[in-house]
Amino acid sequence: MTTEQAPSSTTAQPPPSGISRRRLLGSAGAAGAAGLVAGGAAGAYASEAAREAPAPLSSLGATAVPFHGRRQAGITTPLQAHGHLLAFDLAPGANRKAAAALLRRWSRTAKELMAGEAPPDDTGIALDAGPSSLTVTFGFGRTFFGKAGVGDQLPEALAPLPDFVSDALDPKRSNGDLWIQIAANDALVAFHALRALQRDAADTARPRWQMNGFNRSPGATARPMTTRNLMGQIDGTNNPKPSDDDFERRIFVPERVEPAWMAGGSYAVVRRVRMLLDSWDHLSPERQEKVVGRRKSDGAPLSGGTESTPVQLDKVDENGALAIAGAAHVRVAAPASNQGAAMLRRPFSYHDGFRDDGAPDAGLLFIAWQADPMKGFVPVQRKLDLGDDLSRFLRHEASALFAVPPGCAPGEYVGQALLEG
Amino acid sequence: MTTEQAPSSTTAQPPPSGISRRRLLGSAGAAGAAGLVAGGAAGAYASEAAREAPAPLSSLGATAVPFHGRRQAGITTPLQAHGHLLAFDLAPGANRKAAAALLRRWSRTAKELMAGEAPPDDTGIALDAGPSSLTVTFGFGRTFFGKAGVGDQLPEALAPLPDFVSDALDPKRSNGDLWIQIAANDALVAFHALRALQRDAADTARPRWQMNGFNRSPGATARPMTTRNLMGQIDGTNNPKPSDDDFERRIFVPERVEPAWMAGGSYAVVRRVRMLLDSWDHLSPERQEKVVGRRKSDGAPLSGGTESTPVQLDKVDENGALAIAGAAHVRVAAPASNQGAAMLRRPFSYHDGFRDDGAPDAGLLFIAWQADPMKGFVPVQRKLDLGDDLSRFLRHEASALFAVPPGCAPGEYVGQALLEG
Repeated sequence: MTTEQAPSSTTAQPPPSGISRRRLLGSAGAAGAAGLVAGGAAGAYASEAAREAPAPLSSLGATAVPFHGRRQAGITTPLQAHGHLLAFDLAPGANRKAAAALLRRWSRTAKELMAGEAPPDDTGIALDAGPSSLTVTFGFGRTFFGKAGVGDQLPEALAPLPDFVSDALDPKRSNGDLWIQIAANDALVAFHALRALQRDAADTARPRWQMNGFNRSPGATARPMTTRNLMGQIDGTNNPKPSDDDFERRIFVPERVEPAWMAGGSYAVVRRVRMLLDSWDHLSPERQEKVVGRRKSDGAPLSGGTESTPVQLDKVDENGALAIAGAAHVRVAAPASNQGAAMLRRPFSYHDGFRDDGAPDAGLLFIAWQADPMKGFVPVQRKLDLGDDLSRFLRHEASALFAVPPGCAPGEYVGQALLEG
Repeated sequence: MTTEQAPSSTTAQPPPSGISRRRLLGSAGAAGAAGLVAGGAAGAYASEAAREAPAPLSSLGATAVPFHGRRQAGITTPLQAHGHLLAFDLAPGANRKAAAALLRRWSRTAKELMAGEAPPDDTGIALDAGPSSLTVTFGFGRTFFGKAGVGDQLPEALAPLPDFVSDALDPKRSNGDLWIQIAANDALVAFHALRALQRDAADTARPRWQMNGFNRSPGATARPMTTRNLMGQIDGTNNPKPSDDDFERRIFVPERVEPAWMAGGSYAVVRRVRMLLDSWDHLSPERQEKVVGRRKSDGAPLSGGTESTPVQLDKVDENGALAIAGAAHVRVAAPASNQGAAMLRRPFSYHDGFRDDGAPDAGLLFIAWQADPMKGFVPVQRKLDLGDDLSRFLRHEASALFAVPPGCAPGEYVGQALLEG
C-alpha cells in the first residue's frame, strides 16, 4: 500500500556564471544521477527512492546575487524564504581602524558566500549547496559613529526615531552599532553565513541581538511574490515599484544630500511587531477585511478591483458609507493620507514558539527602506500610532534605525568611504 | 548597472491528483502569466519583474502526501525543510470521550491541510499555496493513558527512558500527553497547520512545549537528501533503509506485539540536542573528522570508500592505528557496537538565536523512530552516554518518548483503535 508519495523531480537549471567550479561539478554529477529516478517511483517505499536520489540543484539553489554593485543587495532583491537580522556593538576600545578592518573582512566573506564559495577554515554547513540567492546587507547605527571616531560623519537622518505612544520596546533587542541582514532561500545557507560573519566579528564587535524570520518558499505559491503575513493578509501590495518615476529618490539617498558617503545608500527601519494572533483569528474574515481595507482572498481593496487596483479612499457603497472604513489600515497608512510618504517594505515573518502567557510569540520583522525616515516610516507610523483599526492587534516590541551605505566596487568594501573618507 | 539578478523561473509541474480544484485554478492561471517573464529580465531592475511575476507553483508547492494509509505520514516521508514539534497536556477533566473527539478533529484537519484544502473559518495563512509536502503526525505520551482513562492500554515500550549521565533535561520542554510533528517545504504552510491544530485543541488540550526546526530546501543542494547538520557534518548516512530486509520489524511495531492498537505504529524518541558550536568550530576540520569518524566533505567513513560504503571498524592504517578512532562517534553508535540496535533518524536542525551566555542556542531536534526504544535509541544512547568523542560537544536539553499509532483508513481517525477499542 502506498503511504507516501515521492515529490516530482524538478528540472535542473544550468547554474549562472557566479557559481564556483566546485559547485558546477557537484551539480553536473547530480543531474546525471537524478535521471535514474525522474518521474518518481511508485509503490510502498517510493519515499526511499526520493531519499536516495540526488535532487537536482534547481534554480532555488543555483541562483547567485552579485555582491558588488551600485546598491547593496538585499534591498530590491526579491524576498527570500529565510532571514537573520543581527545587531552588534563595537567592543570597548575598537577604533576606526578596527571597524574598517571588520567591514573589510565582512565584505570579503559576504562576497565569497554570495558567490557560493567557502571561506578558509569553513564550518562546512553549506557544503554542496548552491548560494540559494544569499544576500548580506550591512548598516550602521547612530551609536557607531562616536565609538568609531567618525562622529563628524553622523547623518542627520539617523536621529533617534520619535517615541510612539503604542511602543513597548525592549532596549536589549533594539538599536545597535552595526547591523547585518542575511537572507537566502535555504535555511542552512543562511545559518552558515551567520556563523561565518559572527566569527569575522572576532574581538571587534559583540552580538547585541538576533532575530530569525521567514517568507514563503519559491514555488510554494503561484501568486506574485507579495507574500502573506501571519494574519493571512497579503502584504506589500502598495509598495513603491522600481518602475515608479520617484522610486530612486524615495528609497535611495540622492547625491547632493550629506554626508557624501551615504549617496546611493538607504535607511532601514527595523521593527519587531508581535501580532496578537489569538485575538485576530477570533474575528470573522469579513471583520478582518474591514480592519485592513483589503479582501483577504486576493488583496483587492474594498473600494473594488484587483490587488493592483489603486485604493479609492473616497469610494462609498450603495448606503453612502465609505467602502474603506475611516480607521482601516490601508486608509491611515496610504501615501495620500501622509503627504506622499512612502517606503519600501521588505519584511520577514517570525515565530519563536509561545510566550509564558501561552500566546504565540509571532509576528512581523518589519523592515522599511527609504531615503529619509522622516519622509517614510516616521510620518506613517505617527498616524498609525494614533490608532488605525489594525494597531489594536499589533505590539511594537523592538525598534532600530540603520544607515545602509551604497554597494561597493570590486576591491572595495562596504562603508569604505565612511571609514577611510 | 545590474545590482540584482532575477532568479530563473522554475518549470511548472502539473499538480498531483491530491490538489483541490481551487489550487488547480490558481496554478494554471499562474503558469500562463509566468510565461511572460520566463528566462528573467536583465537590467537595473530585473528584481522588479521577479517580484511582480507570478512564480509557478512548482513541485515544491504542488506535492501532496496522502493522509490516509497503513502508516502515518512523516516517518518515511522525505525530510521537509520546515518542522514544528508540539506537545500538549490534556486539560483537567478531559476524559476519553473528549480525547477521542480531539483526535477526530485533528485527523480531519490534518487530512484537509495535507490535501491543500482550507478548513472552515480558516486563518488564510496558506491561501494560494500548495500543500508543499505537508505532513502531520500524532503521538501519545505515557502520561496520556491514565488521564484519558485508557491506562490498561499503556504499552510497555512507553516506559520512561532511563536517566543518562550526561543529560541536563528541562522538564518543561520534555515529555507531554500528546505530540504533533508538523513538517512542510514552506514555512507559512507549516505555521498555518500549527495554528489550525492548536485551535482544534480548544479546551481539551493545552500547549506544553513547542520547537521549530529546519532542513535544507529541496533544490538547494545536488546531494542525496542525507542532510547536513549545524556542525557541517552529513547526517543520516547509516540510517536503516526501507529496502533492508529487517526495516519493517525494526521501525514499525509487528502485529503480534501488545497492545494491539499499536500494530503498525512506531515509537518516536525526541531529544533537543544543543551543539556547542563555538567549541566545535574551533577544531580543525581534520580533528572534527576524527571525532565523527567520517570525512566532512562527502561523508565517507575514515575506513575508506564513499558515503554509502559500510564502516570498517577494524581497519588499521599503515602505522597500525585504527582508521576510525576508538571513541569516534560512528564506532560507538554503530549497530555492530550495540547488538544490532538501529533506529530511523529523521531530525531537524534548530536555531533560536543566542543564549544569555552568548553561545548559539542551536543544534538538532533529534527524532528517532523504532519498533521498540529498548532495541533502538536506549542501548545506543547508553553507549554514547559513556562518552564518545562527539558527546563532549553536545548537550541533551529535552527528551520525550511517544507512541505513534498506525495510519488510518478513510472515515477513521488516528488513535481510534486506542480510544474506541
